[in-house]
Amino acid sequence: MALVVQKYGGSSVADASCIKRVAQRIVATKKAGNDVVVIVSAMGDTTDELLDLAQQVSPLPPGRELDMLLTAGERISMALLAMAIANLGHEARSFTGSQAGVITDSTHGKARIIDVTPGRIREALDDGQIAIVAGFQGVSQNTKDITTLGRGGSDTTAVALAAALEADVCEIYTDVDGVFTADPRIVPTARKIPKISYDEMMEMAACGAKILHLRCVEYARRFNLPIHVRSSFSTKEGTWVVSDPDSEGTEMEQPIISGVAHDRSEAKITVVGVPDKVGEAATIFKTLADAEINIDMIVQNVSAAATGRTDISFTLPTSDGPTALSALKKVQDRIGFESLQFDDQIGKVSLVGAGMRSHPGVTATFFAALADAGVNIEMISTSEIRISVIVGQDEVDAAVSAAHRAFDLDADQVEAVVYGGTGR
Amino acid sequence: MALVVQKYGGSSVADASCIKRVAQRIVATKKAGNDVVVIVSAMGDTTDELLDLAQQVSPLPPGRELDMLLTAGERISMALLAMAIANLGHEARSFTGSQAGVITDSTHGKARIIDVTPGRIREALDDGQIAIVAGFQGVSQNTKDITTLGRGGSDTTAVALAAALEADVCEIYTDVDGVFTADPRIVPTARKIPKISYDEMMEMAACGAKILHLRCVEYARRFNLPIHVRSSFSTKEGTWVVSDPDSEGTEMEQPIISGVAHDRSEAKITVVGVPDKVGEAATIFKTLADAEINIDMIVQNVSAAATGRTDISFTLPTSDGPTALSALKKVQDRIGFESLQFDDQIGKVSLVGAGMRSHPGVTATFFAALADAGVNIEMISTSEIRISVIVGQDEVDAAVSAAHRAFDLDADQVEAVVYGGTGR
Repeated sequence: MALVVQKYGGSSVADASCIKRVAQRIVATKKAGNDVVVIVSAMGDTTDELLDLAQQVSPLPPGRELDMLLTAGERISMALLAMAIANLGHEARSFTGSQAGVITDSTHGKARIIDVTPGRIREALDDGQIAIVAGFQGVSQNTKDITTLGRGGSDTTAVALAAALEADVCEIYTDVDGVFTADPRIVPTARKIPKISYDEMMEMAACGAKILHLRCVEYARRFNLPIHVRSSFSTKEGTWVVSDPDSEGTEMEQPIISGVAHDRSEAKITVVGVPDKVGEAATIFKTLADAEINIDMIVQNVSAAATGRTDISFTLPTSDGPTALSALKKVQDRIGFESLQFDDQIGKVSLVGAGMRSHPGVTATFFAALADAGVNIEMISTSEIRISVIVGQDEVDAAVSAAHRAFDLDADQVEAVVYGGTGR
Repeated sequence: MALVVQKYGGSSVADASCIKRVAQRIVATKKAGNDVVVIVSAMGDTTDELLDLAQQVSPLPPGRELDMLLTAGERISMALLAMAIANLGHEARSFTGSQAGVITDSTHGKARIIDVTPGRIREALDDGQIAIVAGFQGVSQNTKDITTLGRGGSDTTAVALAAALEADVCEIYTDVDGVFTADPRIVPTARKIPKISYDEMMEMAACGAKILHLRCVEYARRFNLPIHVRSSFSTKEGTWVVSDPDSEGTEMEQPIISGVAHDRSEAKITVVGVPDKVGEAATIFKTLADAEINIDMIVQNVSAAATGRTDISFTLPTSDGPTALSALKKVQDRIGFESLQFDDQIGKVSLVGAGMRSHPGVTATFFAALADAGVNIEMISTSEIRISVIVGQDEVDAAVSAAHRAFDLDADQVEAVVYGGTGR
């Protein structure tokens, strides 16, 4: 008998009929002889509706109260799901994050899990019951106040509970069949990836693949917990996220590139005419760090000898743009730069693949493909298993398609290339 | 500095603008130098909407999960109210029933409060904060599961917390100005009662006056806690419910009749042709008690000597009718009665007044007034401070008006009669 943790997102429980369908799926897993723990998000648009209500009474609601409000969303969906399961003749009990033992710090709106003590969940399982747990929420260790985990919170709850319960697998249900080699809306021939490593999945998540949040993959990697990303609309196998996708020997060779991710949510700021002196760049980035702005990519131009000045460009979430600009303007006189440029019409395209470690030609192939497609590269950044480029936002689709084609990721060539390896 | 507990019902917090208005009222109470604890119900139709969702997934949802679901309603309203207060520059913290220390038994859907341990509420008050508490809910002492208190639950939460905190007053805000001598929709000249005793208020509540639930008045009486029923739409004084309304000597004499209550929610069952033997009536009412049906009034006809049989009639909540009928049919052969009659077209009209103890003519005046109005009396029941009659449902209005007039309760005669006393 296995212990299966399943997580269903808001679109999987959007209305009563969705909830009934999910209940059947859960009961089927239970009847197959498994212990089942289910983590559930708020129904469909509930969270947005609650946020809208909050805005109507206060433009800047206190974090503690906003968390109290938003956690009502999962309370509703989890109770309804437990009822739907009971209606199928199986026992289910719902638990809030607090009841399930999800202990967090006190940072309302983006609390971090610091401990999981799932005593009541174990009891429910020991009693033969299906446990339904509210995702996205916990209780603060110090203040005993209700907290929410912020973006990716429900996935993280699922992985954290699965780790604490030593589950055999954490199944993340979504509305697509798994993780794809590229966004199928851009590349219709994109292929579902059967297995991917934690490292690659983290790079994919960090580079804009929205299917799993970076944070939940990090958590799974730490506890070496297998994640199975799959569709709640079919019984097909989805994508397994594991430590070593090749360990079972079913694949002959590691694929060079696992997938192409893209992200349109970043903007670029260029600090023009920075005096080329030691420490000026440090001051700029210290200023941004103090304003709690996460910088992604950075490029510093070669200094023009004639002027003794240089330009520094960096990317950041578009929503942080105004804060960053105003923080930098405050230090303009001290640093002595000439001006600031802001460009939110950019996009990031990333190649991710553990195989590129041992295949030095990847960068050249990637850039050649972009050049052939007429795409201009504005910035470049690399890690051991990733290459990212910044391009014009209206060139993202062309860049993704060109890269996907250049590395033969298309579905009709899968067997020959991805598993067979081409030596490129 | 006084400690004021305020309770706002669902209609007082029906939408964002209502919530903002209530927040201003709360802040005004705080600014007047009081400590303030607020008990709040779910917004407007939220509970009905949640019940509707539950019905969509399960015709008979488990009580534990239904309670989990419904408690989301107050969670939403209390968080929004705390935000609205914060937006006015005052600190407020919201607490679930569990966090506020409302400890109950494990009877889901109609749990009873067995203890109140408001440590976190006291802390909030000590920190100068306004405490907002979810009404209608608690946590089971044994199972630690979330419970709801059933009908009148929010008022009862308010009174229970006020008693535990030794508050100076428990203000129950509603959409009318207080307790009236009769329903103003039936008797336009009905008068607001400035003060009423716990005993009278309990009789009024038990007889259909919906403004306060019997249970909350019982609780207040036990702890001798003053209740002030008043409108959330005005600052006028409402009705004070206290142990001895005359103790302050402002009234010259106790009014004979405090008010006229009515109730259209009962039905009548007649057991026809019961053999007139010892123990048959007991068997009938034992059967009903086993089916958990609350009987209100009972009448047994004088036995017809020729047949040796009698009819027994009783009233009960109309919603319990089908259960009662089927329970009785099962014992028909054993008891040997002839048939069952069910009549849901009845209404109960009650006169309530502590003064009737010392005014023996009340019953005669009441019955004469009904006769003059052409109202036929089907059943009668009395207590020391109440007379109730069952009449046809379409005669309820006429009966209420006639009684109101007969005891000179109309507003334009208030001073002369109710406080002056007429000796009738």
